[in-house]
Order: sequence, then C-alpha cells, then structure tokens
Amino acid sequence: MASSATGNMIPVEAALEMVLNASQRLPPITVPIHDALGKILAEDVKASDPLPPYPASIKDGYAVVASDGPGDYPVITESRAGNDAVGVTVTSGTVAYVTTGGPIPDGADAVVQVEDTQLIENASAESKIVRILKQTSSGVDIRPVGCDIAIGDLVLKSGKRLGAAEIGLLATIGVLMVKIYPTPSVALFSTGDELVEPTAECLTHGQIRDSNRAMILAAASQQQCKVHDLGIVHDNEQDIERVLENAISSGVDIIITSGGVSMGDRDFVKPLLGKKGKIYFDKVCMKPGKPLTFAEILPGSTSNRQSDKVLAFGLPGNPVSCLVCFNLFVVPAIRRLSGWANPHLPRVHATLKQSVKTDPVRLEFHGAIMSWELDNGKGIPGFVAESTGHQRSSRLLSMKSANALLELSPSGKLIPAGTSVPAIVISDIMGISGSSSFHSVELKD
Amino acid sequence: MASSATGNMIPVEAALEMVLNASQRLPPITVPIHDALGKILAEDVKASDPLPPYPASIKDGYAVVASDGPGDYPVITESRAGNDAVGVTVTSGTVAYVTTGGPIPDGADAVVQVEDTQLIENASAESKIVRILKQTSSGVDIRPVGCDIAIGDLVLKSGKRLGAAEIGLLATIGVLMVKIYPTPSVALFSTGDELVEPTAECLTHGQIRDSNRAMILAAASQQQCKVHDLGIVHDNEQDIERVLENAISSGVDIIITSGGVSMGDRDFVKPLLGKKGKIYFDKVCMKPGKPLTFAEILPGSTSNRQSDKVLAFGLPGNPVSCLVCFNLFVVPAIRRLSGWANPHLPRVHATLKQSVKTDPVRLEFHGAIMSWELDNGKGIPGFVAESTGHQRSSRLLSMKSANALLELSPSGKLIPAGTSVPAIVISDIMGISGSSSFHSVELKD
Ligand SMILES: [Mg+2]
Ligand SMILES: [Mg+2]
Repeated sequence: MASSATGNMIPVEAALEMVLNASQRLPPITVPIHDALGKILAEDVKASDPLPPYPASIKDGYAVVASDGPGDYPVITESRAGNDAVGVTVTSGTVAYVTTGGPIPDGADAVVQVEDTQLIENASAESKIVRILKQTSSGVDIRPVGCDIAIGDLVLKSGKRLGAAEIGLLATIGVLMVKIYPTPSVALFSTGDELVEPTAECLTHGQIRDSNRAMILAAASQQQCKVHDLGIVHDNEQDIERVLENAISSGVDIIITSGGVSMGDRDFVKPLLGKKGKIYFDKVCMKPGKPLTFAEILPGSTSNRQSDKVLAFGLPGNPVSCLVCFNLFVVPAIRRLSGWANPHLPRVHATLKQSVKTDPVRLEFHGAIMSWELDNGKGIPGFVAESTGHQRSSRLLSMKSANALLELSPSGKLIPAGTSVPAIVISDIMGISGSSSFHSVELKD
Repeated sequence: MASSATGNMIPVEAALEMVLNASQRLPPITVPIHDALGKILAEDVKASDPLPPYPASIKDGYAVVASDGPGDYPVITESRAGNDAVGVTVTSGTVAYVTTGGPIPDGADAVVQVEDTQLIENASAESKIVRILKQTSSGVDIRPVGCDIAIGDLVLKSGKRLGAAEIGLLATIGVLMVKIYPTPSVALFSTGDELVEPTAECLTHGQIRDSNRAMILAAASQQQCKVHDLGIVHDNEQDIERVLENAISSGVDIIITSGGVSMGDRDFVKPLLGKKGKIYFDKVCMKPGKPLTFAEILPGSTSNRQSDKVLAFGLPGNPVSCLVCFNLFVVPAIRRLSGWANPHLPRVHATLKQSVKTDPVRLEFHGAIMSWELDNGKGIPGFVAESTGHQRSSRLLSMKSANALLELSPSGKLIPAGTSVPAIVISDIMGISGSSSFHSVELKD
C-alpha cells in the first residue's frame, strides 16, 4: 500500500528555493500613505522642495549679526512662522526674536539661544531691548535651506519597507499617495473528518476541535494578509475539489489547507492539488512538517486577479507542523509576493539553556523561547534559548511563547547545553522581555 | 527671559520610572479570540477536556495487538474519526485501519505505519488482508488520552501575550471569548504656526508640512492603539486649551502632542498641561528629546472612560526627537496600560561599525541599522550596528530604516568602531534581512 504519488523527501533549502522561485511579487498599486505602513515601496520618491524651505532657527532665541557680540540690542521684529519678518532686515546693532523652526530674517547670520540672553525689564512694550550674554559666530544654530533634505534628493528608494519614520518622511515632502506592493490575499480551509468547529462545547467520540484555521488566520493577518476563511471540509474528494475550485476562482493569490497530505486513504488534498496544478514537492526532510506539499495552480481565467497564478500550500494537519511550515515556507512566499527583496526570516545564533536531542535523519526545528542575556553563559551578551519542551507535532503547547525555531542538524546525537545553534526568529522580537537599565547619567547641570 | 516653569533635566531612567508609575493597566474586557491577537490575557485559561480526547493514532497505518508480531491479518474495521470503530474490538490475530489523528479501536495497543505494511492484492473487497512487516511494541505510535493537554491543565496564564500559537491553543480547548487588557486609545495633535497639512503642494514662506502626526499615527497603530487625529493647532493659547479639553473629555487614555514644549514665548502646551493636570517632568537629560514633557490629568467626569486618568505626552516638535521620545516613553506606557508585565523595549548589544561621537552631558540615542552578522568583527556571531548618519533632531532621514537606538553614555568622547554598545530595539526585528542558508542536510534516504 505504498503511495505512488510520493517522491523522496527534499532538503528544506531546496524546498524553500522552489517556493521562492514560484513566488513573484504582485503588481504594484497606489494607496494613501496611511494604508502603506509595513508595505514595500514600489517607486523611488524624491523631494520636490527642500527642507527646511527657508533658513530656520534651531533654538528659541535671537537672530543676530554674529560679529556684533554681547551687548544690549533692540528687538526689531519677531519671526516665528509664515511671513512674520518678511521685508525686515536685521542690520548690525539690531536683533530679531526667533523660535525653534522659525525663519531667520534677512541679515541675521546666527542665533543666540534665549538661555544666553536677558530681556531688559524697563524697556517699553513697543521697543524691547535684549541683552546678548554670549559671543556667537556666523552660522551657529541656523539650519540652512535644504540641510535636512535637498531639493531633488532621493528620500526613499523603491524596495524600502515603510515604517513610521518613512511615513513621516513622505508627509514631510508632501507625498500622500504612494505606489506599493500589495500583500497577497489568502484562502484557508482545514480538512478532516475528525474536525469540529472550536465552538463545540462537548466533543463526541472521535472528534477534536479545529485549531489550525484560527491559528493560521491569526498568523497570516500578522503578515498583513486578507484571509478568506473557507471553513472545515470533510475528507470527501468531491467536497474538497469543490472548495478548492471555489478558492482558485475567487481570485486569491495563495491557498492554504491543513491536513489531507499524509499517507491515509482519504488524504485527498495532495492528489487534488496535483490534478489542479503542478506539485513541486510533497515531502520535505524536516521535523516537524515532513508531509508539506507545495503546488502552483494556473487558474483558467485571470480576470479579477492580482497575479496569474495561485500558490497552494498543503500544510500538515498536526498543529505544530502546520505553524512551523507556515513560518518557514508561507511567510517567505508572502514576503516575496509583497515585494520584499530579501524574503527570508532573520536567523541569529543562540546558546542552548539545556541539552537537546536531534533527529538522526531530518533537519529539526525546535521551538524555543529566546531572550537576550548580559551573560550568555560564555561571559558575553547574547541570545539564550530555552526549549519549549516536548516537540511532538500534535503538542501545540510547544509553540506557546516560542519566538524562535532552533535549527538542529540531523545527527541523532545530543547537543549539549551551552552550544551555540542557529535560531530562526518567528515572532516579533519587540515582544521579548526588555530591560529598564539605562546607563546611569551624571548630571552636570 | 528664562522660563519659570522649567525644572532641571531629570535622567532618562527616572523619567521612564515616573511614566510607568503613573501608568496603570486598563480594566480587562472580553473579546472574541480573533480580536485578541497581540493582546495580553487577563485570566487563567484551563482545559475543560483532554487532548487528544481519545487514544489517537500518530500515523496512517494499522492498529494492532503488538504481541502478534509480523504476519498476515484481516482488517476488521477502519477508524478515521467519529464513531467509526465504536463497538468493534481488535483482538489478537486481527488489525484495524487507522489514520493520523484518528481514534484507536478498543483492544489495539500499537500502530504499524502504512509504510511497514503491504496490502494483500487478491483479498476480497469486504475482507482485506494486510501483511504486517515489522515487529512493534505496546504504545508505539499512539497518543494516550490527554497526552498533549490534560483535563484541567492551565493552558494559558493570565499575563501571557497572545500570538498565533496561543490563538490556536484557545481554539483547541474551545475557548472563543477571552478576557484581555485593551490597548489604550490615543488623541493626537500637532502645534505650530509654521505647520501646514502634508497635502500642501507648494509651501509659502515660513511654512513646513506637519510630518509628526502621520508618523505618530503610524507608530501608535503599530502598537495596536486606536488614534483620534485632532489635526494641527496653531500657537494660540485658547485654541490649544480648547483642543486639549476636547481630547480630555473625549475619553481617551493618552494624549500626545508635538511641539509647544520648548523655550519660545508661544510654547503653550507645557503651561496648559500644568494648568489641566500635574506635570511630572518637562526636561529630560537626553539627546534628542530634551524638552519632553509628561503630565497626568484627572478628568472631571469618569463616565465613558476606560481609565480614571489621562496620560499626556508633550513630545518635542522636531521629528527625530518626537519619534525617539515616542519609542522610549510612550511605547512602554502603552504596553503597561495594555497589561504587559514587562513593558520595557528589548535591549541588546551591538558592535559599532563606525566610530561615533558622544554628547558631553546628555545620554544619547543614536539611530542605527542593526543586522546579525556571522562575524561581528570579533570572530563570533552578533549584532552589528551602522549609524544612520547625522543625528540632527530635525533630520528625519536619520530614523529611516533605523531598527535600533544605540544608547551612548555621555562623555564627549569618540567611541571607536568595534566597541559593543547597548542598543534598544525599536522596530520589528522580523523585518531585518534574513539569510537563506539552512544547514546542509545529507539525505540518508
Ligand atoms: Mg486527515
Ligand atoms: Mg513651535
């Protein structure tokens, strides 16, 4: 009863390469900048005016002729914004009040901050007199025109991922609509006669709740994907084919299934993916996740679609395998479709807190909680990784709190505690425990 | 003209402590699990049934009496899910077909995977005969009831942040509504006579576009906050007071302003925060961000509110100062309100790619692009940090691509390249360049 459709296991690296080769970035779209956060820019963005657009004060204080030096001077104008001091010239022997970011009036060549001045109390309301206490020199505390952004500067390059600072830069230069790569849309369903909706309060014999859909829906939305939840489909060839066809014709870019890719006589997902498209691989030399299946489907009609093909990932039904395969293969594919130049997950190194046993044959991805320690066990700061315990692929508790997958080469041997191993970062490390210890500062003032 | 309202600069650490002491977590709310992603759980969650709920097969194959050993056996039933084999007992000399995750019929005590069996071709359709090729032993490839989750197990502890795996765990145990801490709501406005909307195509004299609102709106939404954009307010005391009052009575938990906290004669934000509430500090010994002001306001009415106070952050108007202060002070406050036990940003160490000059007095936060290198310059893997260039607080380009703020103690001296310095992670490190080099695997089969 050996399955005829299974090839040999292929190495993880070769599988990932196939996935990425089949993944092309989606055609760019133009969106308002508040919808562009986290997306990849699909055009070069240049500045059409300089910043600052006028010589601007760096301080609240007085614009002066630097060579005048300390002394008492009449305040001939106040320049905060707009046309405040237009037409007024600061000549030797006079000063102008200026505020941070405000325009420097003609004639002035330096700013003396308010802390280094003294307003003469008994001067009349109309003609203020200020005492300049310090000598300055030409150019001090003035930002010349274009010193932050010169006119024509390439402010953001195509391919850049847009974070908060980049959104701020776009607003600064008046660019409110940008061309970006959209994120893929995803259709998702679980297969299995044993599955019931998580809403089931009591389970009858032979039933378990479907955890994978809620989990992958969450994981895909963390990648900014829109997910169409197609529910649970039973292990019935016609039902799965119908849902698969609906998913293909719905215009999504990626189809994700869970279950139905194993050696069972009702594992219909893999043969149906083969019927609808081209299977690249159906067994990967990894633990967990061995039955991962990847196919490419060319839909009959390309109207109403972002891309001319659908990528299909047949994820294993065991929840750990499902989530590990999502992270290792689907996330890089999503990133590639979303325009990332480098779609790979970050890979760091971490010191093992306890010894771990490796698989004799397959590359293993071992869930771990990684933290940054001042002493990683070798007297230097570094990442330390704690295993999440038994890695059985049905035991989703082994992914609880896991922010990294330790990548363990197959040898069948024990890797001793204290060894440094590669670790793939699978969750936002912003979420790891921080530390409050800022460097102590000796106040000199 | 020295301002009377300014105290002395306080150290960053003391300022952060004041912010966190004033920040209390919001009262928990109950939400559907698909709205709980990224949130902190506010209750212990226990399993009310075991997983698996029945002895389950780990493989597709045959449930056997292990002591029977290799040989030809009739397949007396097929058990995939539900009530498939209920009432049927596998006795010595018989086997049952089972699929991964399916229930083990009574009497069987091990599973032989399909790869280690052979279906006898000429057996009739009703009575299949299978050849068992390998000896197994009792318990092999069976998950006993509750081996993944025992009934009553504490699956998720109060205080846990909910990621995709945790959402999957909740679905597994049939928990679809959970108590979580909500994220704070934020009201945001910029102040400054020089500011115009980013939509302005041409700037007239003395105008710049307001970049801070779009930037902080993006940064706060990355923290899952709902942001009310109150626009630009000019440097007019009555206008600012009116907008501030609206913000306070609107029921938000946090008010963020930019500008108006410096030494200028129309910097009304700081005095108005003092008028409406209690200012904790208005000058921090840091670069950039010195004029950062933090206040706590007790609104008259507490109806329609999540919390009984409003935290107000008067961020400096210079965009770099604004974003740095948001990351260092507002993000930890948001996290504390959102129920994080440890609200601090992750702090790692990175090797400097180039030398950097430090401030003589103030603790400096220097924007950097951090990456993980196999050789950090000392022959070991580690983070390497590249400066984003000139750190002038008006030059937002210095925050472009920055995923870390190097924390440089004040000495006025040059820190040479190759030095390891503390680095605060300010953006999702999932976004840093990854590497594709999985360990090479020697296939043994
Ligand atoms: Mg199945
Ligand atoms: Mg101002």
